[in-house]
Amino acid sequence: MSFESLRKKPVRHIVGLMSGTSADGIDAVLCAIEGFGKDCRARILHMSTLDYPESMRGALVGNPWEMNAESVARLSFLLGEMLAEAALKCIREAGFAPVDIDLISSHGQTIAHFPDTNHPLFPVRATLQIGDISVIAKRTGIMTAGDFRPSDMAVGGQGAPLVPYADWILFRDPAKGRIIQNIGGIGNLTYLPPDCDMDSVIAFDTGPGNMMVDMLASIISGGRETMDRDAKMAEAGEVDSKLLDYLLSEPYYSVPPPKSTGRELFGRDYVNRILEFANPANEAQYLSVIRTVSELTVRSMVDSYRAWVFPRGPVHEVIVGGGGALNPYFMRRLREELPGVSVQTHDQAGIPSKAKEALAFAILGNELLGGVPNNIPGATGASRPTIMGKVAFP
Amino acid sequence: MSFESLRKKPVRHIVGLMSGTSADGIDAVLCAIEGFGKDCRARILHMSTLDYPESMRGALVGNPWEMNAESVARLSFLLGEMLAEAALKCIREAGFAPVDIDLISSHGQTIAHFPDTNHPLFPVRATLQIGDISVIAKRTGIMTAGDFRPSDMAVGGQGAPLVPYADWILFRDPAKGRIIQNIGGIGNLTYLPPDCDMDSVIAFDTGPGNMMVDMLASIISGGRETMDRDAKMAEAGEVDSKLLDYLLSEPYYSVPPPKSTGRELFGRDYVNRILEFANPANEAQYLSVIRTVSELTVRSMVDSYRAWVFPRGPVHEVIVGGGGALNPYFMRRLREELPGVSVQTHDQAGIPSKAKEALAFAILGNELLGGVPNNIPGATGASRPTIMGKVAFP
Repeated sequence: MSFESLRKKPVRHIVGLMSGTSADGIDAVLCAIEGFGKDCRARILHMSTLDYPESMRGALVGNPWEMNAESVARLSFLLGEMLAEAALKCIREAGFAPVDIDLISSHGQTIAHFPDTNHPLFPVRATLQIGDISVIAKRTGIMTAGDFRPSDMAVGGQGAPLVPYADWILFRDPAKGRIIQNIGGIGNLTYLPPDCDMDSVIAFDTGPGNMMVDMLASIISGGRETMDRDAKMAEAGEVDSKLLDYLLSEPYYSVPPPKSTGRELFGRDYVNRILEFANPANEAQYLSVIRTVSELTVRSMVDSYRAWVFPRGPVHEVIVGGGGALNPYFMRRLREELPGVSVQTHDQAGIPSKAKEALAFAILGNELLGGVPNNIPGATGASRPTIMGKVAFP
Repeated sequence: MSFESLRKKPVRHIVGLMSGTSADGIDAVLCAIEGFGKDCRARILHMSTLDYPESMRGALVGNPWEMNAESVARLSFLLGEMLAEAALKCIREAGFAPVDIDLISSHGQTIAHFPDTNHPLFPVRATLQIGDISVIAKRTGIMTAGDFRPSDMAVGGQGAPLVPYADWILFRDPAKGRIIQNIGGIGNLTYLPPDCDMDSVIAFDTGPGNMMVDMLASIISGGRETMDRDAKMAEAGEVDSKLLDYLLSEPYYSVPPPKSTGRELFGRDYVNRILEFANPANEAQYLSVIRTVSELTVRSMVDSYRAWVFPRGPVHEVIVGGGGALNPYFMRRLREELPGVSVQTHDQAGIPSKAKEALAFAILGNELLGGVPNNIPGATGASRPTIMGKVAFP
């Protein structure tokens, strides 16, 4: 089947594949997609996940950018096989056959992402996603798109974030202004003014998401918990306003967007510095720290809205996704801080949070097929809209 | 411009890019190509080269498969910029503009090629070419194909050799059987029976090419020479028939094709073992070794023809390419060993030897555009013909 005939189909069936930074497995979503660009409509038909075997997880956690090129090559082929398997599983479970599917669109696994030029020998920006798309295409018999980030970086962007394009497709509204707030390890938002064009979309990282709260919950529970389930710890503590003021003085919050942050800033070292404020023998102090950091997460979001979003246009709704949407403290405090704004979850807005990122890559692949630019310069800092991605044939 | 309209163009202008294992630079060839598959005709309009800066050469020689993933990513982007520059230089020198060019087709630089499964953690075959094609496409504004080898490997092939497909396009003849003998570091051949289909083509490595002779010339000259220029050293020595018999007993020569070899077998260690036969103080003995190894190169080729080619069909011509075509000893001895066969160089046959590999990748890219399988299972060992390569958009 050719590009042109695929473009003319009224409905395309596309499988999106997402293998995230948490390295726990592959999310696959089978979608029915109509149109391109402003006319694109996407509907989820089925979603499934495939867990990584321990060997794959082991290879990807830590500092994968330090593995050698032989391992990069071999792991890329091995992951290609797994991505093919994840796609075929999703297609089978949905009651479809591979011949019914027009395209697979895969994010791949990021093993190196360097939007800086700080390298002694090769002072260029670069990003590397593995999970070879030729392997996926040959194994499934389905045309496969992938490797989106290098294209944006090649036109001056950071190669991230890419999901805001899908936010624009899925959530823009003729009358309402919306913030799509993701709370993953890091918090990030997409702002969609009412009836917006692609070039009025902005997106950036708001600051910490669940990463620091998760680490604190693990420390406080002696390793029994990986997160502050139902915000029970945060609700049991008191905000330490001196600590909160200190944390809010972090310069990242006053940098204007587009901007991004990560584990380098809000990771283990930062948590260790915060814990110097608490006596390990005093549980109340520990609970106070987790409450304060939870509050910091909320405040860094709403302060961002006030500083960078509200001046650009109205916000009628905040739609929260990621693991943080399950944290009742975050949701309650967002509602308190944003009177008159409807704060809801992705699931309440009709897009299952778990399916969102894989769906986003199905949408990016659809645009590639259509020859439509699918990056958002207001999110990545790219010098221009461009068609991201590569294609491999079955 | 879409795939479909490119397919319908009577003549496509395609730039082929080759960056070889010797890591000295990039060969670029601008071609005019008509048709696909059996009807494909390619004509060279211009060729040019771009030397690597010392930093790039330094990164690629040695064992590039040991560099870390950060370097792989950054080097891939940096090389993408250089490949784009090489393509633009060739286009400009030819008097064309980027807008006149339909496709760039790039081999990339191989930094890892493992057609075995000998890895403790990831027991899969894999290959990795760098020089990101998205960077080339964005920088030139021209659709770019590349990354051919993984597709063949994904259908069970060795991912090499790929040039025999181009030999089939360029050199097959309705009445003559031809051997296309390349003498690079390693010797390899493509056999094209008269009026042959793709599936009667075979190709394999015959054994050593220039690699061992070059090393010996460097040792004998105390590093002043990188090759046995005009075969002066070989012509000054005598064949040591005991040593020759010993070298010809190497088991590789009796393995039936498809087969491939490389530096692992016929590299530095092998040369050092041979030199144990010679007294360093005795120049005549050294010249005898280089003569004997030159003779080995010729004998391994003609013995291959007798064992694996002549039984399959007639051979009217041997067309020699690569650096070895400039070695008068090789050419004379081939002619002596093959009475009744016309032995000529690529240049005599109308295809400049220097342009051949870049031209081959232009041809592979043309077939990708046409949706035509472009691997040769009889050369790579793949389970089936398949469309190799990935595409990135401007």
